[in-house]
Amino acid sequence: MSFVPCEPSSHFPLQNLPYGVFSRRGAHDRRICTAIGSYVLDLKSLSDAGCFSQPVAAAFQQGTLNDFMALGRTHWSEARQTLTQLLSQESPRLRDDSDLRSKALLHQADVEMHLPASIGDYTDFYLSREHATNCGTMLRGADNALSPNWLSLPVAYHGRSSSIVVSGTPVHRPRGQVLKDGKDGKQPVLDRCQILDFELEMGAFVGRGNGMGTSTDVNSAGDHIFGLVLLNDWSARDIQKWEMAPLGPFNSKNWASSISPWVVTMDALAPFRCPAPSQAPQALPYLQETDRHSFDICLEAEILPAGADEPTRVTLSNLKHLYWTLPQMVAHHTVGGCNLRPGDLLGTGTISCNTADRQGLGCLLEKTWNGTKPVKLADGTERLYLENGDTVILRGYCQGPGYRVGFGECTGQVLPTRTSMDV
Amino acid sequence: MSFVPCEPSSHFPLQNLPYGVFSRRGAHDRRICTAIGSYVLDLKSLSDAGCFSQPVAAAFQQGTLNDFMALGRTHWSEARQTLTQLLSQESPRLRDDSDLRSKALLHQADVEMHLPASIGDYTDFYLSREHATNCGTMLRGADNALSPNWLSLPVAYHGRSSSIVVSGTPVHRPRGQVLKDGKDGKQPVLDRCQILDFELEMGAFVGRGNGMGTSTDVNSAGDHIFGLVLLNDWSARDIQKWEMAPLGPFNSKNWASSISPWVVTMDALAPFRCPAPSQAPQALPYLQETDRHSFDICLEAEILPAGADEPTRVTLSNLKHLYWTLPQMVAHHTVGGCNLRPGDLLGTGTISCNTADRQGLGCLLEKTWNGTKPVKLADGTERLYLENGDTVILRGYCQGPGYRVGFGECTGQVLPTRTSMDV
Repeated sequence: MSFVPCEPSSHFPLQNLPYGVFSRRGAHDRRICTAIGSYVLDLKSLSDAGCFSQPVAAAFQQGTLNDFMALGRTHWSEARQTLTQLLSQESPRLRDDSDLRSKALLHQADVEMHLPASIGDYTDFYLSREHATNCGTMLRGADNALSPNWLSLPVAYHGRSSSIVVSGTPVHRPRGQVLKDGKDGKQPVLDRCQILDFELEMGAFVGRGNGMGTSTDVNSAGDHIFGLVLLNDWSARDIQKWEMAPLGPFNSKNWASSISPWVVTMDALAPFRCPAPSQAPQALPYLQETDRHSFDICLEAEILPAGADEPTRVTLSNLKHLYWTLPQMVAHHTVGGCNLRPGDLLGTGTISCNTADRQGLGCLLEKTWNGTKPVKLADGTERLYLENGDTVILRGYCQGPGYRVGFGECTGQVLPTRTSMDV
Repeated sequence: MSFVPCEPSSHFPLQNLPYGVFSRRGAHDRRICTAIGSYVLDLKSLSDAGCFSQPVAAAFQQGTLNDFMALGRTHWSEARQTLTQLLSQESPRLRDDSDLRSKALLHQADVEMHLPASIGDYTDFYLSREHATNCGTMLRGADNALSPNWLSLPVAYHGRSSSIVVSGTPVHRPRGQVLKDGKDGKQPVLDRCQILDFELEMGAFVGRGNGMGTSTDVNSAGDHIFGLVLLNDWSARDIQKWEMAPLGPFNSKNWASSISPWVVTMDALAPFRCPAPSQAPQALPYLQETDRHSFDICLEAEILPAGADEPTRVTLSNLKHLYWTLPQMVAHHTVGGCNLRPGDLLGTGTISCNTADRQGLGCLLEKTWNGTKPVKLADGTERLYLENGDTVILRGYCQGPGYRVGFGECTGQVLPTRTSMDV
């Protein structure tokens, strides 16, 4: 227990201690912090006060988590132990130092959260068998739903890192080339996206990287992952359909991706390890894990229309359903010698599970079955895809006995296409 | 004319003044420089000596070109004028200051060149109609060579920025999943790449970026490009073939891309403007240029086997053949609101032209027509694809009257797969 009060429903008890980057409202100075209850704890102030030894102390002086991410598991665990101690009810160091406490312990409402790291490269995978099967069925029919390589390797594409924004940042509906019915049949035109979707994903931040020309073994790959965030990979389905062959999604995805500000560490997630789905056919040896596991993380997506009183939950899924695991993602990414760097982000792809009530489907494309089954919202309206003014809210947490290790929220409101880009 | 001697065949006369980043051999300090004849000129030393006004002076204090790239065309042209003046035969400022000259003017042989910028995102396009037609013909036959969208938009995919290396850096043959004949038909296995290729490309460095949710008009897009480099987009064709559908190239491309160290500015290239191929069907309005043009840049690729006396030229092509132009690339990339940042790299894709003698083909896949027509090298050996020990040398230059504006070289030797990754 911490001397900082914490409700059982809070996402940020002493068992969590996620990392983020904040600034005081109105200030420019970006600092590393952790979350406890409804507070953030300023780790630069604690570092200044001599609470950490090197190299952690120096890493907590930075304005992004990249240096800390690069330190590796031993130092991450050491910092976590120090923080657990500092915040515990029994420890006087911070509890009884009102000066340090008033400097370092700030209400979350008084700070602005930023991207936790400078993200060098962003890769998005396609790890959910249910999602890939559903998308493939809509595209090619049930008999050829999975592409021939899908069960053999964790399919992925390189994404765009410049347009990754932190939760709370609104996004503008994009425009792009789409196929439209014209007098001579279907013709490409420039238009506002009409089929705007969210994707419920998680993102893994790379901690320790690997050198170019080297690979990371699947059984040590877990040690290269610093922690996880919620990720909404906004998708313009009509643009995607026309541009995607032969080189993959481009303008349909590169205009915005949103992540939650708090990186929940693998140490905090360890109590929620659970079996991962078994794989048949067996993976190639470089993808076979001696201790194959996943994490039991409840995930939900809600839509809140502009002016509505309450959001409607449209998805309830769980990370544990993913066919390919986080270590397999790292092992495959590096098998040919590609170097990962601290702060790189690896997205899981849409996390869907198949339930009779369609609650487990992680994007509207699946949920409305290609725009044929509308979703009813609490305000009485219906959705096939996102409308301007809609806010998408992702949430995630692990349920422990009497406490939650949570990710907070990843939210983003859809604004109209900018006037300057009107078509 | 410059007071620094310069042969007519040099790539770096006073008309060029490309930018790069160097360190003295054995030193760690990275500095911005330009090239003149067989010398580099240290622009930090000149900035220290008060040769530039702000904000250029501050930008030249950095260890990468990103800040300078961000300043925009007016400041780039101003810096170019100052440098032209400083290096001209008639100007005493640097010519007669032996102290400053000995500090700032260094033999290229005494310095090591580095990546010119911190590359945030790397995008690779597919701009050459000849290349796309040849690849499509091999894959789908001549009747369906171009994908349906190819004439309608400049096709592109997001690449990997972490593994972009500067010319001279050796690369290790990757391994990856490939399909192999087994007793039950074709099976995926992990193997060393057997079909290793180069791709002769150019890369455009983004100078001034654009904000997220905004677009860059095709007619001002040229002002957002800082300059060009040579780019070798190493490709593992066997890995590519198996992984590519549905999300595009991934491990086949992300293990290495090489660029030349010198960024030749658009001001230096202006005298070599030439018409770009006309487009039919007409592009959509957002891709129509009022002053459509390309640049006449001779490009060559050579292969030098290990131990051979001389390289063999395998490709002779030219940037001017590209169907889509550099401004069209920027306009399409940003049409949906994707933000480009200073230092982002946009690759053109393989630059091929069709000539009777097959000299214009920019990669071995095309050159050997999918491995069926061997290329004869000067040492008597033949190649279908690259062998260990082979060095690929790209060169590029614009021929003026009595001078060349050149890009120098982009070289890389293929080393064996690392022992630790042996399969």
